[in-house]
Amino acid sequence: MDDLERRIAQARGDMQAELVLRGGRVLDLVTGDLLEGDVAICGDRIAGIAADYNGAQVIDVSGMVLVPGFIDTHLHVESSLVTPFEFDRCVTPRGVTTAICDPHEIANVIGLDGIRYFQQASEHLLMDLRVQLSSCVPSTEMETAGARIEADDLAQVMNHPSGIGLAEFMNYPGVIHRDPAAMAKLRLFAGGHVDGHCPQLRGRDLNAYVAAGIRTEHEATTAKEAREKLQKGMRVLIREGSVSKDLEALAPLLSERTSPYMCLCTDDRNPLDIDEHGHLDYMIRRLIARGVPPLAVYRAASLSAAEAFGLKDRGLIAPGLRADIVAMPDLDDCRASLVIAGGRVVDDAALGARGHVAAPGRGSVKAPVIAPNDFRCSGNAEETPVIGILEGKIITEHLTHRIAPVDGDKRPDAGRDLVRIAVVERHGRNGNIATGFVQGFGLRHGAIASTVCHDHHNIAVVGMDYDDMALAANRLSEIEGGFVVVRDGRVLAELPLPIAGLMSLDPFEDVRDRLVDLRAAARTLGTTLEEPFLQLAFLALPVIPALKITDRGMVDVNRFEIIG
Amino acid sequence: MDDLERRIAQARGDMQAELVLRGGRVLDLVTGDLLEGDVAICGDRIAGIAADYNGAQVIDVSGMVLVPGFIDTHLHVESSLVTPFEFDRCVTPRGVTTAICDPHEIANVIGLDGIRYFQQASEHLLMDLRVQLSSCVPSTEMETAGARIEADDLAQVMNHPSGIGLAEFMNYPGVIHRDPAAMAKLRLFAGGHVDGHCPQLRGRDLNAYVAAGIRTEHEATTAKEAREKLQKGMRVLIREGSVSKDLEALAPLLSERTSPYMCLCTDDRNPLDIDEHGHLDYMIRRLIARGVPPLAVYRAASLSAAEAFGLKDRGLIAPGLRADIVAMPDLDDCRASLVIAGGRVVDDAALGARGHVAAPGRGSVKAPVIAPNDFRCSGNAEETPVIGILEGKIITEHLTHRIAPVDGDKRPDAGRDLVRIAVVERHGRNGNIATGFVQGFGLRHGAIASTVCHDHHNIAVVGMDYDDMALAANRLSEIEGGFVVVRDGRVLAELPLPIAGLMSLDPFEDVRDRLVDLRAAARTLGTTLEEPFLQLAFLALPVIPALKITDRGMVDVNRFEIIG
Repeated sequence: MDDLERRIAQARGDMQAELVLRGGRVLDLVTGDLLEGDVAICGDRIAGIAADYNGAQVIDVSGMVLVPGFIDTHLHVESSLVTPFEFDRCVTPRGVTTAICDPHEIANVIGLDGIRYFQQASEHLLMDLRVQLSSCVPSTEMETAGARIEADDLAQVMNHPSGIGLAEFMNYPGVIHRDPAAMAKLRLFAGGHVDGHCPQLRGRDLNAYVAAGIRTEHEATTAKEAREKLQKGMRVLIREGSVSKDLEALAPLLSERTSPYMCLCTDDRNPLDIDEHGHLDYMIRRLIARGVPPLAVYRAASLSAAEAFGLKDRGLIAPGLRADIVAMPDLDDCRASLVIAGGRVVDDAALGARGHVAAPGRGSVKAPVIAPNDFRCSGNAEETPVIGILEGKIITEHLTHRIAPVDGDKRPDAGRDLVRIAVVERHGRNGNIATGFVQGFGLRHGAIASTVCHDHHNIAVVGMDYDDMALAANRLSEIEGGFVVVRDGRVLAELPLPIAGLMSLDPFEDVRDRLVDLRAAARTLGTTLEEPFLQLAFLALPVIPALKITDRGMVDVNRFEIIG
Repeated sequence: MDDLERRIAQARGDMQAELVLRGGRVLDLVTGDLLEGDVAICGDRIAGIAADYNGAQVIDVSGMVLVPGFIDTHLHVESSLVTPFEFDRCVTPRGVTTAICDPHEIANVIGLDGIRYFQQASEHLLMDLRVQLSSCVPSTEMETAGARIEADDLAQVMNHPSGIGLAEFMNYPGVIHRDPAAMAKLRLFAGGHVDGHCPQLRGRDLNAYVAAGIRTEHEATTAKEAREKLQKGMRVLIREGSVSKDLEALAPLLSERTSPYMCLCTDDRNPLDIDEHGHLDYMIRRLIARGVPPLAVYRAASLSAAEAFGLKDRGLIAPGLRADIVAMPDLDDCRASLVIAGGRVVDDAALGARGHVAAPGRGSVKAPVIAPNDFRCSGNAEETPVIGILEGKIITEHLTHRIAPVDGDKRPDAGRDLVRIAVVERHGRNGNIATGFVQGFGLRHGAIASTVCHDHHNIAVVGMDYDDMALAANRLSEIEGGFVVVRDGRVLAELPLPIAGLMSLDPFEDVRDRLVDLRAAARTLGTTLEEPFLQLAFLALPVIPALKITDRGMVDVNRFEIIG
């Protein structure tokens, strides 16, 4: 008997269901009703609800409330610093049964091979990993990436079943100014889904961006900005990453009225954060604690997400839909006792039975050997642009300080919290090194460096001491990329990320422990930032206002120009 | 410059918009906000909102509120008794800019040619007529239709741009009992949209129907039934036709909470009703008058409808979406002052400029010549099933009366309101004639007859006098089908419907006038029904409970069996 007939037969009770969840109540996200009765599952689908069913396997969920599996509507798995397999093991047990990822971090390092890795991995996970195609590799023409992906390249990888359209279109100037390469990509995905990214765009510029057919967006950082995006027909994704935390600002906009049109996403969230706070489950808890009605929150976490991205086969616990179910004792607390993903109980056995795909991107760090003097920052004018960090945001301030050169070098100044920042090209292309200043790190000694450096993933280094900075950068070449903290000529802590300089080969628990060590080591350098490596990673991203730095220099994002 | 670039340029104000609506306020159906500012239109799309724009053409809409064009989510254009062109001229000026039709009336008479007629007509209308493919021709195996459409036939017409999937799957027993022909049709449209029709289905039977992948439904007649369908993941379409009127019963379920998941439809609405009360505009007025919040009502009328049927290009007044806009002075009253459909102002000039398609289905009435005695109703048992009319509903009651035969014929009995009903096969296939009783018509004299007789569209006749019944039936053959009222051997009124016996060649105003005459004539026969012809038309539809009659006999719909 085929799936269709079997599902109908099990739904009707004409044959025994394969799996029955008994004794719980289903939260219906449409009416808000709590529905008594069994949930019958047939293969990867729900067959029936709110009725009595017999099952080959019966799981007692007495006292539990059942909600649809959560959908992370935008994230980069690479930011979890582990493989998709470890990511799956880390977050699926928390109830995240669908994740819409954009593999653009790895794509910026190794191109289509990186996208294919995620596509292949998606075939073996418990969660349904949907792989959007990276729209902007490189993110702009103001940086050196390891790869370049044009419309023709995307066409080669666009028919994988995990596909869900074009990933965040970060080159928003390219859209609103009708750049031919941007237009070609939009045309390739015309009629399909094109995800957005347009921080602080408003008025007619926002109209122009939306008019291009881009209808989902996760970069709103204020309720006002999010409201305008909603009004213009965008589905707004509330993001709570490890760096960019917009939940508090946007929570007031999430209500029963708006919930059908809002979603949740994590964008970039590391295993330390996931371990300490949670993933989407954390967002759900926080939003409910902030006073948002649970119905609105759970809608945003599943049903509205499915709608926004055209995933017609999920988002409710209803007949015929994917059996993605989270059982929990308390809706407000959102701690999963049982997770069913595509009809499979998420447990160690199911995780252990998954297939595997070998990771690509080894040996990707090809930076020149760096000398301390490479970090000098020359210039005659005392007026100096300084990146102003806003903790917990990936947008920055464009500050200006008077910094007098000493021996032709504008030196770091701990007294004014003016820290040297540098970006070193590491894809073996040109060996570019750009230097500048950042304020807000609070660094007083040593250096920290990283190959996680959005989106080109060159080596980003901040430091007070050029020798330590050189040691840090050179150490990254030795360990195939990762994070490193250096002081007084000594490596205090490090985390190798040998998959494209972005992801570890180790279990997520080990990565989490290393991050604890790194954070502690960074604190000994004086930094006051909660997540110095994550904050650093976004200082090189020239599609987020206001002032950034790439291997080609300081970038005024609002003018979309390199300013030196 | 291509459409995409031109739209972006006009949205940004880099070039003049083609059309600007100035001075109105846009009701944003997401936030409920009223947005000031111009609406800029480029081609068939909205370019920008809530900003200042220059336009080649500017229309002053000062004092008006603008809402998205209405979407009728389920209707049979044939029930308007006019061609799609006249239907367009009749309802588009009322704000209906999208209609999702199922041409299954004409398909039951002339097969795929009828579907193709609607597909071709859709290319020339001001409204966007979306043509679903009729799933059940004939609706059951208990009737003789003029055509039969199987999955292979559907495959021939499924790639027209007006397509939106498979139309109302009325053969719900076929679905839940896994009839192979039903399964083949579901498979053909797997992944696409399959519209539903499952009156009074509930519990595990409803689970089974929904598990088949059917997610929109318009047959709920009570709030309880509709609520269960919502809970099980169906989008519920509130229907207010000329016969089946569910608005009052379902209005209590339509709230801000449920509105994203509910839609409006008319199913079957004739030009008399449209003229006297309105179309979707009438439903909107009524719902608001009933106390449903305007935001919820306008959502159901556009945004939620677009969502439910995957029409991603409409449903809001927002950049990039279809320029389907209704301007009105008063949201509660919903009387359109200006309608824009696909960027075109709906006026006489635009209506006059449309292309045309010749109507098919002439000479389709091929009934035998009927004699009065053909209407005798034989049988020994006095226990007689009687169709009990529920005014304003297409469901009926299954009544039983004791009726003694006289000379081997159970005679009509005006004293007990037991009226003869008969169905005469008219497709030239077998000349079947079935007879029975109906209660609730209140007919005391004469006969009325019609070739609009769902879904097989044979000749349905009700009457107290066999001579008049024969005259009425035979007259329909002469006028190529339609409606006729006969008393004492004389035709009192008639409306020819020469397109497949279903649609007039005349303007809708003329049809409306004829319906007034027909209604008045029917009243002289004693009927107390507001719409006797419409009520009659559904007495032969064996997919709506409880007791119906086809050319093959009386049908117990709940048992899906011919009972004599």
